[in-house]
Amino acid sequence: MKIEFWMLGETTKDFHKEGLDKFCDRIKKMIPFETRVIQTKKGFNKLPKQAWKKKEAQLVLDKLQASDHLIILDEKGTSYTSSNFAKHIDRLMNLNKDRIVFLVGGPWGFDESLYKRAQEKLAISAMTFSHQLIRVLFAEQVYRGLSILKGLPYHNE
Amino acid sequence: MKIEFWMLGETTKDFHKEGLDKFCDRIKKMIPFETRVIQTKKGFNKLPKQAWKKKEAQLVLDKLQASDHLIILDEKGTSYTSSNFAKHIDRLMNLNKDRIVFLVGGPWGFDESLYKRAQEKLAISAMTFSHQLIRVLFAEQVYRGLSILKGLPYHNE
Repeated sequence: MKIEFWMLGETTKDFHKEGLDKFCDRIKKMIPFETRVIQTKKGFNKLPKQAWKKKEAQLVLDKLQASDHLIILDEKGTSYTSSNFAKHIDRLMNLNKDRIVFLVGGPWGFDESLYKRAQEKLAISAMTFSHQLIRVLFAEQVYRGLSILKGLPYHNE
Repeated sequence: MKIEFWMLGETTKDFHKEGLDKFCDRIKKMIPFETRVIQTKKGFNKLPKQAWKKKEAQLVLDKLQASDHLIILDEKGTSYTSSNFAKHIDRLMNLNKDRIVFLVGGPWGFDESLYKRAQEKLAISAMTFSHQLIRVLFAEQVYRGLSILKGLPYHNE
């Protein structure tokens, strides 16, 4: 079982990248975990919003295997406390799936085809954060969740 | 009317500081806004958790004026979508208060005395984030909210 975190487009090289790398490095020491940047094509940003989302979705769908458990990060998804998210990570790791894929979208959110493909929608917050900042938040919550499961002193109740 | 953002303890000088400064600089160009670091005393971290929180709370209470509208950032508080948070900022700016104070706590959360003093509790997320990272999230949401109110192209629905 491996957890992968897929992101549409590069992480911009300011504080987002530093924050993301910091938490991902810690996670990688704890579980099989990989990040993957799905390069969006030049010219997508000249397309109308719906067409852009559709093109991005196709890039993701082409890389998914039928057996992948896909969780998209969406503010209308299920919200958890950090403790409950930790329990959910534990459940996911025991699903008997080869690969759990968490996906953060581009600036316009997800095309309908990805909503249909996804097994779950996860809300980091009811608030919308930039698709860059949400990467840091997701990684921090996975690290926090694993720390809770392992009884490490990162999370204070 | 001025909005102030009070933080218990310095912002650690890695990506948090860069992210916080970036959004606060933008906010300051839009509304009267100030950040204030409340220095916690050396030795607090040797106290038991409850005593530490009580000492921190006293530092905050000493700096508040009776007329201040205090909003504490707490994951058990009211949650908003970004659009609704924008509307809430607009309401706050029309409260006829000299000062609206948002407060982010230290590593152990808030003492009971601050829960009693606060007019509102604001949840950035049901998840717990580090008291360092939550500073960046708060500033991003205030900037996003002001962008929504002013019709700037930062927020995509």
